[in-house]
Amino acid sequence: MDEFVINAASTAIVTNQGLEQAVLFFAERKCRHLLVLADPYMVQIGLEDALQKLTGTDLSVTLFHEFEGEPKIGPTQQAVNKARAAGADAVLGIGGGSALDMAKIVKTCLNGGQDVSHYLMQANPMPENRDVLCVVIPTTAGTGSEASGTNIITLENGHKGWVWGPQTKPDLVILDPSLTVSLPPDLTAWTGMDACVHAFEAATNNYTHPGAQLYAHEALRICRTSLPLAVQVPDSLAVRRDMLLASYYAGRAIDMASCSIAHALSHALASLGPIHHGLATALGFEVSLPFVIAADTNNMRSAARAFGVFHLADLPDIVSGFMTELNISRALPPAFANKTADDLLAVLLAEEMQPMRQACRVWAEDADLAGFATALFDPQRAAA
Amino acid sequence: MDEFVINAASTAIVTNQGLEQAVLFFAERKCRHLLVLADPYMVQIGLEDALQKLTGTDLSVTLFHEFEGEPKIGPTQQAVNKARAAGADAVLGIGGGSALDMAKIVKTCLNGGQDVSHYLMQANPMPENRDVLCVVIPTTAGTGSEASGTNIITLENGHKGWVWGPQTKPDLVILDPSLTVSLPPDLTAWTGMDACVHAFEAATNNYTHPGAQLYAHEALRICRTSLPLAVQVPDSLAVRRDMLLASYYAGRAIDMASCSIAHALSHALASLGPIHHGLATALGFEVSLPFVIAADTNNMRSAARAFGVFHLADLPDIVSGFMTELNISRALPPAFANKTADDLLAVLLAEEMQPMRQACRVWAEDADLAGFATALFDPQRAAA
Repeated sequence: MDEFVINAASTAIVTNQGLEQAVLFFAERKCRHLLVLADPYMVQIGLEDALQKLTGTDLSVTLFHEFEGEPKIGPTQQAVNKARAAGADAVLGIGGGSALDMAKIVKTCLNGGQDVSHYLMQANPMPENRDVLCVVIPTTAGTGSEASGTNIITLENGHKGWVWGPQTKPDLVILDPSLTVSLPPDLTAWTGMDACVHAFEAATNNYTHPGAQLYAHEALRICRTSLPLAVQVPDSLAVRRDMLLASYYAGRAIDMASCSIAHALSHALASLGPIHHGLATALGFEVSLPFVIAADTNNMRSAARAFGVFHLADLPDIVSGFMTELNISRALPPAFANKTADDLLAVLLAEEMQPMRQACRVWAEDADLAGFATALFDPQRAAA
Repeated sequence: MDEFVINAASTAIVTNQGLEQAVLFFAERKCRHLLVLADPYMVQIGLEDALQKLTGTDLSVTLFHEFEGEPKIGPTQQAVNKARAAGADAVLGIGGGSALDMAKIVKTCLNGGQDVSHYLMQANPMPENRDVLCVVIPTTAGTGSEASGTNIITLENGHKGWVWGPQTKPDLVILDPSLTVSLPPDLTAWTGMDACVHAFEAATNNYTHPGAQLYAHEALRICRTSLPLAVQVPDSLAVRRDMLLASYYAGRAIDMASCSIAHALSHALASLGPIHHGLATALGFEVSLPFVIAADTNNMRSAARAFGVFHLADLPDIVSGFMTELNISRALPPAFANKTADDLLAVLLAEEMQPMRQACRVWAEDADLAGFATALFDPQRAAA
């Protein structure tokens, strides 16, 4: 019998009053000083005023939104410094995966009394105390950061690093669809595909197990129905709620079983130039899926069925049609014009990509990786 | 949009080396004094020696097994006293739901520095600190106590009470099928039916929600296939593992959505005389199911489908056939010979039964309850 672990999970509240619930949580625990890590967009639409109205005098609020794109070590350390200067005993992350990852790293640093660099790449043990509380509210449905102990951070040399540990998980997750209805169609599609790929990879790779599959299959079931609806009927709270659940469940699944080759391709693409993580992941998934499903395992057939596909061999065409239905362009962003498949292959062969490559149920030889890279840079594919 | 909460969950390890994993957990956290609450049966089969071999000198072990049947306030307080005398900083519950509920209550008392009576019926706030750690290992697959914040305890007046709170949940759940293979067929069937009914009630009652249904449906899917196998092929670790998962998932589901009318009937029966909780629950489920499914809700149809039944109207007959396949006798135990349907009805109308009655999707009038009671005491039914 295979042994496995069903990871611990924080309480998750599904509500239309996310900010109210977050403030209530901190108030009940008598927190005094709150650091808020928010996407710049949340600040533009009036987050500060909204929080001020809710908090009253018992909870002071310090806002940090001086960051863009994926978390970098510099701004994350600045956020830690700002939190310390404010005497923060509570952290709220609200935004996409970057704001959430940063919030989780900041509260870890506050609980451990160390700087970000101390916790990079498991260099030191994570703090066990939970004196500084952390609530996260995703405003996209894709990364699943709210459910995971993995936090991606770009190092000073430009490479992707991470801060990992179940201790980084938040004390409360809030899933509020009213904060995701304004997400534009392309971001809805890209982030939703990220959730789909998390679920498929966690349900089928070398580390999958029944505990992870429960969540991964539910995420696949929801995505198949609700992701096209979220693009087509963007203001439906019910559909947005379902996608937040799918993303959260897919996050639970990768927290247990990790991801695989499509994410290696995605991370490698991102290192060549600016590209949305969800888009890069969807493109990487599409070009590698026929290779992966050649393994034809029971787990792959079950994952396909959860996605509503009864013959595994049909999955690549159905996924491609699904991406087309979501209006996902296969063209790489303009910044990739002077990059080549060889550049991508070089990154794919770098050491940090090997864990995701090894997670794949089929071993991808260098020539296979070269094939994926060629497909991603194929101008005909982009034009189709 | 309906709002709901997905409750926090502890880490759950699925393993064939449960005792080893428990001792490792305590050792890694530098615990020194362990109180073990164990079913007398576990002690008979050599639990003390097995623990001694594992713990070495760093962890002293105090065993408490002076209890039988469902937890009572007297023995539970004795266990608290014994733990205090030993200076216990760790509690292990190993056995059926009673040993697990007691372990969860004992560690709560140790963390809060109060006696059992202090925490009964939410009389006082629960302690938030987790200094005293708690691991639970179920040796039956049914109650789901390992996943829940509800702990049943019989009060000094003989009525059923409870200690409730997410703070009572263990720090680690261990699901070890090797400890359940020796469970006799009748106990396997009865406890497995308890898990089935938890899942059906949590998937369909007034408090159900999608977060609870994910677990409830998975439990129903597993039970339909694996419960008959666990009775027929008792020594299959894979089947026993699946039933432990089903029971754990059903426990997750009732932790969020609570149970309903079948459990009211079960608790009422138990107050009339000694009867196994799982058997009483199965009997209560069978006599009330036709009434309940008359509501014909989407949730009921989904729950039936998860159990492999595509027409809800067929569910009662299929459940009855399933119970017959499990060799579950419909006769009440001999101690019920001088009890009547009227005795049962009187208990069903008592105040403490009303929350489970109210949870039911259809309001059961007093006459409906009288009908269930009559069916349970029907000699023809018992003989069938």
